Amino acid sequence: MNPSNIGTVGQDLHVKGLEGVIALNSSICHIDGRKGTLIYRGYAIEDLAANSTFEDVAYLLWHGHIPDEDQGLEKELASLRHVPEQVLNLLLQLPSDFDPMAALRTGISLLSHYDPEANNSSPDANYQKALRLTAQIPVLIAALARHRHNKPPVTPQITGNTAENFLYMLTGEEPGPSAAQALDAALVLHAEHGLNASTFATRVIGATLSDMYSAVVGGVSALKGALHGGANTRVMLALLDLRDSGEDPAEFVRKKLAAKERVMGFGHRVYKTLDPRANVLRKLLIELAHERNALYWIDLCSALTRVMEEEKGINANVDFYSAPTYHLLGIEPDFYTTLFVMGRITGWTAHLLEQWKDNRLIRPRAAYTGPVGLKLSNA
Amino acid sequence: MNPSNIGTVGQDLHVKGLEGVIALNSSICHIDGRKGTLIYRGYAIEDLAANSTFEDVAYLLWHGHIPDEDQGLEKELASLRHVPEQVLNLLLQLPSDFDPMAALRTGISLLSHYDPEANNSSPDANYQKALRLTAQIPVLIAALARHRHNKPPVTPQITGNTAENFLYMLTGEEPGPSAAQALDAALVLHAEHGLNASTFATRVIGATLSDMYSAVVGGVSALKGALHGGANTRVMLALLDLRDSGEDPAEFVRKKLAAKERVMGFGHRVYKTLDPRANVLRKLLIELAHERNALYWIDLCSALTRVMEEEKGINANVDFYSAPTYHLLGIEPDFYTTLFVMGRITGWTAHLLEQWKDNRLIRPRAAYTGPVGLKLSNA
Repeated sequence: MNPSNIGTVGQDLHVKGLEGVIALNSSICHIDGRKGTLIYRGYAIEDLAANSTFEDVAYLLWHGHIPDEDQGLEKELASLRHVPEQVLNLLLQLPSDFDPMAALRTGISLLSHYDPEANNSSPDANYQKALRLTAQIPVLIAALARHRHNKPPVTPQITGNTAENFLYMLTGEEPGPSAAQALDAALVLHAEHGLNASTFATRVIGATLSDMYSAVVGGVSALKGALHGGANTRVMLALLDLRDSGEDPAEFVRKKLAAKERVMGFGHRVYKTLDPRANVLRKLLIELAHERNALYWIDLCSALTRVMEEEKGINANVDFYSAPTYHLLGIEPDFYTTLFVMGRITGWTAHLLEQWKDNRLIRPRAAYTGPVGLKLSNA
Repeated sequence: MNPSNIGTVGQDLHVKGLEGVIALNSSICHIDGRKGTLIYRGYAIEDLAANSTFEDVAYLLWHGHIPDEDQGLEKELASLRHVPEQVLNLLLQLPSDFDPMAALRTGISLLSHYDPEANNSSPDANYQKALRLTAQIPVLIAALARHRHNKPPVTPQITGNTAENFLYMLTGEEPGPSAAQALDAALVLHAEHGLNASTFATRVIGATLSDMYSAVVGGVSALKGALHGGANTRVMLALLDLRDSGEDPAEFVRKKLAAKERVMGFGHRVYKTLDPRANVLRKLLIELAHERNALYWIDLCSALTRVMEEEKGINANVDFYSAPTYHLLGIEPDFYTTLFVMGRITGWTAHLLEQWKDNRLIRPRAAYTGPVGLKLSNA
């Protein structure tokens, strides 16, 4: 906690932005920003990304342990991908210049109207909703990505994992193995990150005993903010600018630093040394770039990281590598935050299931700084 | 702050549910639960309800002072009621067994897609969005209330205040003077209530620099929760049960109390003595009941408050009187929380405008209580 943020008003504790205040207990995720470690339910993120799948991580987040062989969720999630026709019909009536995150917010809100269990708050009904949301959000995203180009949605496959099926729905073609592997790892890396603003918004909404769809819509709404999701979109726009301008990457960085501008994709608010997710994704990006014969992006990334290391001693973060990864997967930059949702839906719903096991309203106070004792003149 | 909720984990302050922690400064609203006072921007709620209109209160919440005669918002809000045809078309394709709050959440999310300024975050664009949301939310609610009964929406009037026009849109007929006055006062009373859970959710989302529609969608999502909005719905269902069963009201209360069950509409989490909004609405309910020739509800309310006063010394709260008021206005019980939104949209947007003047991410932490050091067996 930063002591400069803390004050008292009368007897009350005042912490601007609640920075450092512990609002609740959670057994889902631990982040050590100084050591650069991220663990889900006790497992290091590097271990999970290398030796697990997104489906196993979803199970881990929801149940607290790695599934046995017969408990894996790949088949179950694959069987739940059918989005009610009415939802897609309504969603694809949106004008095609939609904001992808706004459209996903609308799409998830629409899903609830066709779910007879939307307001059933039993633990089992909520778990089933977590499964359906995780299975169906990729279908909404792929349909929206195609709708923008006036292409009809591709019916999801009833087999394959989330990453494979999403890439298939995006293009109508089977993805290569490195592509599916890179997306699977990206989903694992984005599945959970403690009590960040979107997860906190999700829990604040859930704590009123609102329904899971409402809480998840709130999470999407928060992740849409420029201070939260969206960093990798800005990284990619910068990388594309660099490519198109033909500017020397080292020169680009030095000019930015001289102008005291931020170089997107470096450093992290939480991770003071290394972002443990960055290394994992860098390796997968290299494999994918080979599969896609697109070594340009590797060279560009290396040039940028080298000069940032030399000039500032700052490392690249997960956004720096997810940007070119998603680009090579054929995803447009302004859709990147929707892929964040595709992974994070598992963390949000795990937090909701945890919140509802021992619910308590989350409600701090505001200190009143306005006038008192005013009267209307005609009173 | 309740000391039993506070602990420390290492060096950190731990306050379950953030109860009593001050997260931010606000000059919008002050509540004194012990004295039973509620003030908006320095004015007592009783003064505002008696001598002001919902439009003037909206102006007060947004601008910090009562409008001069030529600054009143009635005309401006009336001119902004046109909801894009596509939004109503999409919304009215929802199955007619919709949950009203879920449908309103969807409707507000849809509005953003047809607002070219949805992602314009300039203070003026945001103020204009606050006006449009306040003008258009009643149109969505009235359209939904009619859609349930397969009735087409009534085109809003381009004159008249929010309350008059809403009642007109609901039935297609001009409301009586007591009806419009009662609804206007109910909107004033519900316009703002400090950093409650829905306003807090709205600010948490807004603080990521997400857009106003997203933040308001989050507010609706939180208000939908059983611990937040919805109390007056439960009051009305109880009153209707009482009417239909013909049970003696005093007997009903005594049985409830003997069974240690809660009598809905009495006492308040914040107001320990009197809910200052209750008295205001009680008087308006009496006038409305006379206009509608429905004195039954006055008698029933009096019988219930008398026995609760005798048995427990607990007073009725705002929900107790808003329930029969809304019933006499022809609003169905499960729509009551949408009327809460119709008023509270002004408070939520005032909080957003305030948040964005001096923004800071709102993000507490969780204490990790799970395992560490686990490894996947195949690692």
